Amino acid sequence: MKNRQWVLRQTPAGTLIQDDFEWREARLPVPSPGEVLVRNLMMSIDPAARSWMKMAIYRAQVMPGDVMHGWTLSQVVQSESPLFKPGELVECMGGWQDYALTTPDQMLRRDPRHSLKHLIGVYSITGTTAYHGMFEIGRPCPGETVLVSAAAGGVGSIAGQLARLAGCRVVGVTGGSEKCDWIIREFGFDAAVDHSARDFRDQLVAACPDGVDVYFDNVAGPVLDAALGIINIGARIVACGSVARYDSLSPVAGSSLLPSALTARRATMEGFVVLDYAARRGDIEHRLARLVAAGRLKAVVDVEDGFDRLPGALIRLLSGGNRGKLAVRVADLEM
Amino acid sequence: MKNRQWVLRQTPAGTLIQDDFEWREARLPVPSPGEVLVRNLMMSIDPAARSWMKMAIYRAQVMPGDVMHGWTLSQVVQSESPLFKPGELVECMGGWQDYALTTPDQMLRRDPRHSLKHLIGVYSITGTTAYHGMFEIGRPCPGETVLVSAAAGGVGSIAGQLARLAGCRVVGVTGGSEKCDWIIREFGFDAAVDHSARDFRDQLVAACPDGVDVYFDNVAGPVLDAALGIINIGARIVACGSVARYDSLSPVAGSSLLPSALTARRATMEGFVVLDYAARRGDIEHRLARLVAAGRLKAVVDVEDGFDRLPGALIRLLSGGNRGKLAVRVADLEM
Repeated sequence: MKNRQWVLRQTPAGTLIQDDFEWREARLPVPSPGEVLVRNLMMSIDPAARSWMKMAIYRAQVMPGDVMHGWTLSQVVQSESPLFKPGELVECMGGWQDYALTTPDQMLRRDPRHSLKHLIGVYSITGTTAYHGMFEIGRPCPGETVLVSAAAGGVGSIAGQLARLAGCRVVGVTGGSEKCDWIIREFGFDAAVDHSARDFRDQLVAACPDGVDVYFDNVAGPVLDAALGIINIGARIVACGSVARYDSLSPVAGSSLLPSALTARRATMEGFVVLDYAARRGDIEHRLARLVAAGRLKAVVDVEDGFDRLPGALIRLLSGGNRGKLAVRVADLEM
Repeated sequence: MKNRQWVLRQTPAGTLIQDDFEWREARLPVPSPGEVLVRNLMMSIDPAARSWMKMAIYRAQVMPGDVMHGWTLSQVVQSESPLFKPGELVECMGGWQDYALTTPDQMLRRDPRHSLKHLIGVYSITGTTAYHGMFEIGRPCPGETVLVSAAAGGVGSIAGQLARLAGCRVVGVTGGSEKCDWIIREFGFDAAVDHSARDFRDQLVAACPDGVDVYFDNVAGPVLDAALGIINIGARIVACGSVARYDSLSPVAGSSLLPSALTARRATMEGFVVLDYAARRGDIEHRLARLVAAGRLKAVVDVEDGFDRLPGALIRLLSGGNRGKLAVRVADLEM
């Protein structure tokens, strides 16, 4: 039996392209004592994957020749550990391949009564990133204005909904008028602004008549710069991601309003990596599940089918082509 | 009797010059009911004054034709309020003039048993800015490395000493090797790095072998950029000031490491304006006074004499020519 793998062929020179990857077939790995062999079912496609190709950030850099890394929903095939049994559904860093070796400390048991879509789109690092970033760092209060960028994406769409549930006016930034309409209709954003519009800044100001109290920043770049111009005193900026910059080859200048706008507006900009809060993940998942069960939180998962789609899916994500959480299904759960 | 005044002649075009100001003699103002006439004794020369010429920041912009604003130690000459009596020593926003009208809500009674130097150099917005920024925002812990820029200045020299008292290794950044030696000798910095050195970044890295846990940023610009490159996980950046940018005419690009370094290092960058914490000022002054009385905190005040020196003093401050808190004495306290 073969193990299909997508390998990084070269460190991308700017915008990620299909040729940055190559397809390889390897032998099925054999678990040593303590190890577990899993079959990957669904790959989580995350913007962070692009930054792993540029630098070590909470994990080693992905170098040419490495199997592309990524979170996966996977099923245990063979276990040389007493902690997991064949057939169990887990989340792990299975990477872009059919089969992976992992160890129990890197695996999180998942409840197969949830759909794979929900498990990847909301009870995952996606939902917990949105929850943690919004409530631990953004700390929105009823009546405040919360701005969310990449608002049509997995994290952004959940972050925006959570802020609405917390009683805020929520403004989303996304690309194109269609996606703007969609996030209002689908997720209940109070307003949406198209970052590709020529008068984006004016539209943003108009959409935030009371300024911005919390900016959940997934993109950095010009959207951050515009947001900094309208933050209120005491604003909190959640530095979640910098998607607008991941594809850039050389360092891009930051906002000229940093740090002066933070001083003038007595504002805070705080970064976080949700993996640091693993101990809280169970609690946060329960809260998210209650909201989903009550019909108060919607998770949209944009699923592509087939192993061959992996590089294209990440490229599509980076260009803003996804609607909701992007994932690639490569196999089905065997019951 | 005449009231000498320094007036902003024009909004500075880049680097501040003497010709941006003009001298005027006005009539002595007469207090209305509720108002107090004060004579200014000592002017606090603060970098913020330069930013007031560019924008409204916690006060209106200083426009051409306006008397230059600034904090002063002043003595009450005539009071039309029951709250203050002639002869009392106060701190207020007297501005760059001999006499000013003010109101009790804008005045802070000062204890004349302290020297004017200590009152302007440490029991003032200078000392309380250092204290508040370091302990409320920086929150240094023993064993951590604290980096302070503009370390030879009023705020920086106190901030650095406070961090040492809190058990930290403290590294100062200042301009020129002489000032580097001086801050080590005078204030006990553990190391000092010259930001004008060609190998500044390498020197900074060498001076911070364990990285940076707290960066008390008074300058922004290249020093902030270098600091962001070596912050530790969980670092706190105190966005106190952006002196390196106040003299720039057009917006200057920010650090390319913002916001990504904050995300990757789970770091926080927070701005503050000490005026927001007026209610805590008395307490903080008492703590500073205990440290000064015990010989544990040193305040160096760089005093120029004479009303004519005011514009030149601010220009000198912005070019980093001061050693310690810069002030201009224009009159003596009359007992």
